Amino acid sequence: MEKREGEGEGEGEEEQVVNPWTVSAKGGGKIDYDKLIDQFGCQRIDQSLVDRIHRLTSRSPHVFLRRGVFFAHRDLNEILDAYERGEKFYLYTGRGPSSEALHLGHLIPFMFTKYLQEAFKVPLVIQLTDDEKCMWKNLTVEESQRLARENAKDIIACGFDVTRTFIFSDFDYVGGAFYKNMVKVGKCVTYNKVVGIFGFTGEDHIGKVSFPPVQAVPSFPSSFPHLFGGQDNLRCLIPCAIDQDPYFRMTRDVAPRIGYQKPALIESSFFPAMQGETGKMSASDPNSAIYVTDSAKEIKNKINRYAFSGGQDSIEKHRELGANLEVDIPFKYLSFFLDDDAKLEEIRKEYGAGHMLTGEVKQLLIQVLTGLVERHRRARAAVTDEMVDAFMAVRPLPNMFN
Amino acid sequence: MEKREGEGEGEGEEEQVVNPWTVSAKGGGKIDYDKLIDQFGCQRIDQSLVDRIHRLTSRSPHVFLRRGVFFAHRDLNEILDAYERGEKFYLYTGRGPSSEALHLGHLIPFMFTKYLQEAFKVPLVIQLTDDEKCMWKNLTVEESQRLARENAKDIIACGFDVTRTFIFSDFDYVGGAFYKNMVKVGKCVTYNKVVGIFGFTGEDHIGKVSFPPVQAVPSFPSSFPHLFGGQDNLRCLIPCAIDQDPYFRMTRDVAPRIGYQKPALIESSFFPAMQGETGKMSASDPNSAIYVTDSAKEIKNKINRYAFSGGQDSIEKHRELGANLEVDIPFKYLSFFLDDDAKLEEIRKEYGAGHMLTGEVKQLLIQVLTGLVERHRRARAAVTDEMVDAFMAVRPLPNMFN
Repeated sequence: MEKREGEGEGEGEEEQVVNPWTVSAKGGGKIDYDKLIDQFGCQRIDQSLVDRIHRLTSRSPHVFLRRGVFFAHRDLNEILDAYERGEKFYLYTGRGPSSEALHLGHLIPFMFTKYLQEAFKVPLVIQLTDDEKCMWKNLTVEESQRLARENAKDIIACGFDVTRTFIFSDFDYVGGAFYKNMVKVGKCVTYNKVVGIFGFTGEDHIGKVSFPPVQAVPSFPSSFPHLFGGQDNLRCLIPCAIDQDPYFRMTRDVAPRIGYQKPALIESSFFPAMQGETGKMSASDPNSAIYVTDSAKEIKNKINRYAFSGGQDSIEKHRELGANLEVDIPFKYLSFFLDDDAKLEEIRKEYGAGHMLTGEVKQLLIQVLTGLVERHRRARAAVTDEMVDAFMAVRPLPNMFN
Repeated sequence: MEKREGEGEGEGEEEQVVNPWTVSAKGGGKIDYDKLIDQFGCQRIDQSLVDRIHRLTSRSPHVFLRRGVFFAHRDLNEILDAYERGEKFYLYTGRGPSSEALHLGHLIPFMFTKYLQEAFKVPLVIQLTDDEKCMWKNLTVEESQRLARENAKDIIACGFDVTRTFIFSDFDYVGGAFYKNMVKVGKCVTYNKVVGIFGFTGEDHIGKVSFPPVQAVPSFPSSFPHLFGGQDNLRCLIPCAIDQDPYFRMTRDVAPRIGYQKPALIESSFFPAMQGETGKMSASDPNSAIYVTDSAKEIKNKINRYAFSGGQDSIEKHRELGANLEVDIPFKYLSFFLDDDAKLEEIRKEYGAGHMLTGEVKQLLIQVLTGLVERHRRARAAVTDEMVDAFMAVRPLPNMFN
């Protein structure tokens, strides 16, 4: 899965392009999410749906849900209907292991998935698409697998429950029931169709053309006989960034034709780059993102120097006009990572009105992110190779629904 | 593998077309094998190569080699050079399990491969492409796997040595090292390239586009770590019908780019249909072929009624002109299955000169094929499920080179 975490890679082309490999807004501006929802044919998550989740789980919805980071869905109501009737479901998310160090955007789907796992007490499968990265990023098989294992440590550090979580690398796990489902899916999708969905060209290699079924089939419980043997009607819910929607549109189109349930989706917007929503987070520019490996000093430095400010040029003008919160990165980042709703509301008012200065907001963000990164670093340091082996073992999870 | 056994499916199009799914001669005539060798870029097997095999193996070359059924090759001399230096190689062949009952054409590559295994004392991998048949013939996964196992019994009945032979179904075996090699191959082949080689169109499903690497990678010893772990430079020799050459042209093109040896090939012509070389053996016409399940009565009946004769219309004319051996199916079939060179030569002379009549030649063919089919039937009846399991177990073969 490329950029499942939702990093933007806008090149400023004329039309908005969002697919698993390119996220670019019209004319280099901001992504038009309303248009995307229309174009993709998914639904917006409204307040009543958030309230319903609150009621069903008896806990406060995750900040990413309250604040619209996860903003779109497919069939989420049906999953909740089933859950209310006492039926179970499972979660499926993933990561394309293309880099050693994750940035904050990479953590978003995992932080949210952990919340869903805890709130609904359901099993989770996490796909590490080392095969995809080997093909798209031209990494060796060995390097892709090494990165998959390194990334698994960061994922485990998010706090997943080993009794409900199966993490797998495609290079290790493709085969058997999983491969049979790949063939079933492949039979139902023409080359013209994948060209329409993913924009492949004749000069793309056939590894790319072969890949969509690999990302599709974890949506089907029969791909995991050791977990869901005989539970072929178990529903699947996929938390992901919306650029992954093309894979699952294809999957949902195929599912009924091969006798399977369509997976439901809950989809996030993209996490903005330090330089602003129109900038891109780029592996070649370490200042475009905060990495989970950044030191406190680096975080402080990056935010103070590079976080795009919506504040005015002079203090006098700022006091008069207030900050433009629509473009202000420190405020955006706080809206992702500051748990305290009242505090965020206060900043929205005070900063927006010009009573707070950019420097103060940046200070708070530095504090929040330093804490977050420090906690992640400690958690990751505690992840042993044995723990990785435990999460990745092909094993039954007898207590996964308890 | 479709028609690896070499059945012709001529539709009489204008140009000669030979690929794994279509074999059709120009204008509905006979396949021009010289042209095919030119077009594919392989080499003809000449007498000196047959003599070299005779010398190296200290046994009479197989009738299929003596009589030019296996008539083309790639790098066979290099395999023999290595063999002469004391280096080992392995054999790879396969079958697409699309039908329950095999016909005589299906047996040819297996009869020949058994000879190669015995003559060179080398290990053999046999791929059952149940995934391919599931996709091309629109069989269910379960039915494809059932046919694979049924076909495995016929293959085992050809007399392979279980201590040197690994038979595998793709649905069972794809994964791990095999899948890693599939990805490596897929990365090196563009969509345009497979269109050029296999003639896929945009309306073909992506399962088809994904398949060529599956047939490619048994050419590489690293796809079988339980057999060839650490022997990454072991050469591979592939006996197959020449319609499979496109897969292995692709494989040979990719091999050096991923650090592997090119497989060598030894390729057969197509086994003719009962109705003659321009006819086609068709599953929908049981009279177009002799099946290994045919009774003695059916064999007699089919040959007497349907085997296309090159004899003349009247006995007088026949005595005068002799039979046209170029089109005579009873004589062709004898040249495949009658071991006795002197006897065959006698028939060539006597029948060609009109001293023998078609009826006599047919009688001899009935006798030869009834014996062959009866021996096969007995051998197959002796193949137990335990034997199939033994051949298909993923296991080391410690004595495979002895």
